[in-house]
Amino acid sequence: MNRCLILQSEVQSFIERCMIAVGAKPAHAKSLADVLVAGDYRGHYSHGLNRLDMYVKDIKTKICAKDGEPVVINESVATALVDGCNLLGPVVGNFCMDLAMKKAKDVGIGWVVARGSNHYGIAGYYSMQALKQDMIGICLTNTSPLVVPTRGKECTLGTNPISVAAPSKDGDSFVLDMATSAVALGKIELHHRRGDEIPEGWGCDSQGKISTDPSKVLTGGGLVPIGGCEATGGYKGYGLGMMVEVFCGMLAGSQYSKHIRTWKVTDKVANLGQCFVAINPENFAPGFTDRMDDMLSLHRNLEPAEPGVPVVTAGDPERTNMKKCDELGGIPYHISVVNYMNNMAKDLGVNPLLPTERKVEE
Amino acid sequence: MNRCLILQSEVQSFIERCMIAVGAKPAHAKSLADVLVAGDYRGHYSHGLNRLDMYVKDIKTKICAKDGEPVVINESVATALVDGCNLLGPVVGNFCMDLAMKKAKDVGIGWVVARGSNHYGIAGYYSMQALKQDMIGICLTNTSPLVVPTRGKECTLGTNPISVAAPSKDGDSFVLDMATSAVALGKIELHHRRGDEIPEGWGCDSQGKISTDPSKVLTGGGLVPIGGCEATGGYKGYGLGMMVEVFCGMLAGSQYSKHIRTWKVTDKVANLGQCFVAINPENFAPGFTDRMDDMLSLHRNLEPAEPGVPVVTAGDPERTNMKKCDELGGIPYHISVVNYMNNMAKDLGVNPLLPTERKVEE
Repeated sequence: MNRCLILQSEVQSFIERCMIAVGAKPAHAKSLADVLVAGDYRGHYSHGLNRLDMYVKDIKTKICAKDGEPVVINESVATALVDGCNLLGPVVGNFCMDLAMKKAKDVGIGWVVARGSNHYGIAGYYSMQALKQDMIGICLTNTSPLVVPTRGKECTLGTNPISVAAPSKDGDSFVLDMATSAVALGKIELHHRRGDEIPEGWGCDSQGKISTDPSKVLTGGGLVPIGGCEATGGYKGYGLGMMVEVFCGMLAGSQYSKHIRTWKVTDKVANLGQCFVAINPENFAPGFTDRMDDMLSLHRNLEPAEPGVPVVTAGDPERTNMKKCDELGGIPYHISVVNYMNNMAKDLGVNPLLPTERKVEE
Repeated sequence: MNRCLILQSEVQSFIERCMIAVGAKPAHAKSLADVLVAGDYRGHYSHGLNRLDMYVKDIKTKICAKDGEPVVINESVATALVDGCNLLGPVVGNFCMDLAMKKAKDVGIGWVVARGSNHYGIAGYYSMQALKQDMIGICLTNTSPLVVPTRGKECTLGTNPISVAAPSKDGDSFVLDMATSAVALGKIELHHRRGDEIPEGWGCDSQGKISTDPSKVLTGGGLVPIGGCEATGGYKGYGLGMMVEVFCGMLAGSQYSKHIRTWKVTDKVANLGQCFVAINPENFAPGFTDRMDDMLSLHRNLEPAEPGVPVVTAGDPERTNMKKCDELGGIPYHISVVNYMNNMAKDLGVNPLLPTERKVEE
């Protein structure tokens, strides 16, 4: 595949100029750019620059608010309910995570729930903010229905991700950032484009039957929860997806489950529910990072089932991707993404993305 | 199968008299009986009376402490670290859950972590305590290593369950209570006894390869995380299992991961780490139970993929089992379990289990 390399700072700046061009406040544009660049840098291209047109459209069509700041509407020393005021997801996310961390510094934990929010990129971006203050971060969000519950045939739950980040020694960490569906929609789309079958246990057809045909999953079918079909434990993934709703839509009083607008249809406001938690290990047993270090090392040093395919821990694949980007000196993007973005730039009247001269072969 | 019916109160009393006979304090014996009876009543026979001999042995051999009460060793308005003082798991569990609920009443959330604990039966018993006070309960525990991490071939994580209970209207609720392994060990053992193959995605052999032969899983192999192999998302279940350790062993400073003693080997104290959380919905958006009711109804009323096999929500299968017990007027046990228990009763010099006269055919 033909990819070209772009400096992180240039991706950041490009996202900011596009968002400012459609009327976003510079600080809000920066918040969005931060999380989209982090998504790409970590290798989650489905949640990075690739989705910029969605955010541009959200501000341009005014379906997402460009002015204002989130508001605390109910608060204790350890909890808060925040109205995201229909602002960009990252603006709401940063506000809530900062608040959660402040509370955790004071009383050991901060549990903050937001209503009136929007898509916010990778959940891991927010949970990882806690690492900077040597705390554990948790972040959950509900999303548009794409997942069919066990025994059903209709999509009623989003991919409802769970992210938990916990600090270890010397900047090392555990970073879980996973959808509660078996795989992301993007993986099914990729197989479809290539004309490949998908493994059993990724999705189902419109009758709720597990299917290996990506076109059936994409037209009328849906993703299945982690665990696949009922016999292999799919009901657990279904339960986890609904658990995310308990902490998001239920506590927040936002939209939830199948009441959330259809994916990619932006005819009404999203009003997503999100949950942000910070926990201070200092309120519990001393030696937290020593134990984390031992647990992570213990797993990374296990003898692998297949020689040369090492056991890793959550966050390691992303770490490898970031290292690759650092060595390359930028983030590699497919040329078609760059072309798409530069067409958008032309429409918005902003300077195009400037790729470095080097091409990357993969 | 030949089963006989026993009154719940008789099971409760039998467990109490066995435990008291080996020296447990009556209040501690009652706490254990409460949770074991709840396990059976809910249909989780692997976590009920069936395991009484383990608890009897723990007290008899003094590997578990029979005297004392748990102690708070670090506390804020919203958090606590508790030393379980090597007492019976349910004694520690009740103490911690009560403390978490008190804090949640005050400041909206209580996050309590215990070290020095022991097996405590079903995790759902503790999370469900919160329902009685119209709160959300969470309960997690680490356990002896039985699960092989993705790409590995050695058991390094327990079945590390996650339980979340959330109240709905009129006594209805969402009760997730699941191991982070694809299935429980008991399900593999059952297939093995019957001479049946297991579905792909339940366990692996000693080389870390997914196997459908239960004997290979039981001898040198292990359970696999929810999601099965790497291609079907098993790394997510592996991540969830480790997440449970972050909230249990890591925060508690107890044993963790492969440092926990081998399953069923009680040559040293367990020193398990456990996490108990209560969240008060009143600190968030009004109308929590209305939304819960809508979300649960919405799912239960979905058109099923297979006519006659209804979509259910977490806790519904247990509700069905409890209803069956209520209709029968007791809990049905296999005759071999009753005989086993009565042999134990003879050894301990206590009155045997008194089955009702009615036999139950299933």
